[in-house]
Amino acid sequence: MYSVSIIGSGNVAARLGHLFRKKKFELAGIYSRNKNAVNALAVELKVPVVQQLKDLPQADLTILAVSDNAITHVASHMPVNSKTLVVHTSGITTLDALMPHERRGVFYPLQSLSKNKETNWDNVPLLIETTNRKDEELLQSVALQLTLPCHILNYEQRQYIHLAAVFANNFTNRLYAIAFEIAGMHGLDPTLLTPLIQETAAKIKCMSPHDAQTGPARRRDSATIEQHVDLLRQHSQYRQLYEIMSRSIIEALASESA
Amino acid sequence: MYSVSIIGSGNVAARLGHLFRKKKFELAGIYSRNKNAVNALAVELKVPVVQQLKDLPQADLTILAVSDNAITHVASHMPVNSKTLVVHTSGITTLDALMPHERRGVFYPLQSLSKNKETNWDNVPLLIETTNRKDEELLQSVALQLTLPCHILNYEQRQYIHLAAVFANNFTNRLYAIAFEIAGMHGLDPTLLTPLIQETAAKIKCMSPHDAQTGPARRRDSATIEQHVDLLRQHSQYRQLYEIMSRSIIEALASESA
Repeated sequence: MYSVSIIGSGNVAARLGHLFRKKKFELAGIYSRNKNAVNALAVELKVPVVQQLKDLPQADLTILAVSDNAITHVASHMPVNSKTLVVHTSGITTLDALMPHERRGVFYPLQSLSKNKETNWDNVPLLIETTNRKDEELLQSVALQLTLPCHILNYEQRQYIHLAAVFANNFTNRLYAIAFEIAGMHGLDPTLLTPLIQETAAKIKCMSPHDAQTGPARRRDSATIEQHVDLLRQHSQYRQLYEIMSRSIIEALASESA
Repeated sequence: MYSVSIIGSGNVAARLGHLFRKKKFELAGIYSRNKNAVNALAVELKVPVVQQLKDLPQADLTILAVSDNAITHVASHMPVNSKTLVVHTSGITTLDALMPHERRGVFYPLQSLSKNKETNWDNVPLLIETTNRKDEELLQSVALQLTLPCHILNYEQRQYIHLAAVFANNFTNRLYAIAFEIAGMHGLDPTLLTPLIQETAAKIKCMSPHDAQTGPARRRDSATIEQHVDLLRQHSQYRQLYEIMSRSIIEALASESA
């Protein structure tokens, strides 16, 4: 079984740490600038905390689960050692951000990770990139032990899947928040929407989102659209969003029939 | 057990019909203008088809599961009979659209219903409105037999929950479609996004969407936002949507800290 060192104490570090622990990897050490967070996480993971980056224990795999803009800084201040494969977890950062390390890789799980919620890892794709075939095999073997399907993506592909994920996850969640807010403003329990939200997500497991599209814009029901726009007359930002989303649905239909 | 007649042959008529059948209601008859669709549905539901609206058999409950703009027309052309409670299934239509019927009601299940996919009815709220207490009790009793939680909403509340549902369901589904399209355009299997979509929806069962918000805009990571906007330079519509959604996330944060 491979040994792993972790840098970071945020959502990604926490969820990956728990996954590695559960799958019986050897956790060699953990480091983070955020001492309170890393101490708490280290207790959960039963892994030794290191106080300085330069003291990070050598492991088969070192995971930089830090924010995108910290990757270069951390990579340049940690021990350089050809015995460890150094990977980051970013969807939008190149391999070369990990210079001067000779063995560099990307280890990007395409999932929404929250520190305070256990992650459903079923079928979560692990998107990897390396500089050489041997390290590729190492990451594939790690994925196998984590029981995650593994895909090799180059930088351009990874950027686009990351962008797609922002639409599917971050923007979708923002729509949930707006829907909850609209309900709450009118004295309605927002959790009335929960089964609808679950079903909307479940549908795409058996039909394409294109085929699953419903609603006033899909039906070109301009009376309902106008009524909704009128309900939002006090909320220009949501009204604008309503109009743009509806237009997007209508234009997708039009380009289909064209 | 109550008897039910159904008007319509679309998504709502089909899914409600199956639910009533499963819960052992007596299906008295079904009518739709669309003869092919209603014949096929009638076979599935084992219910007699009526050829003309005026021949619709009298039942305890008559459900108009037709498009919003057809409700008034159908209501005015069907038999008037005080022994049946006539309900529509629309989130955005008043009770009075069902004139001249004396016993009018709304029977609005807050769920995304697709003809070709079985519906998960667990905890789906049934939103009702009636003109009198006795019919309210009848619908509450029907909801109980369907094992659906039942809520009495007035027209204004129903309009707003319908609007919220458009954000949570129709617009969310459109974001899924855009995400799938972005992935597909770059040779990536869109189903890579499926676990992420499921997890995003599952999260709101245990935390508010406000607390669940992640992503570049949530982190005010302007470098990533700029990079994503640049990736969308050929797709002005998606770029505009990206910018508006990101701004919406950033402004929600700002109003929180204000």
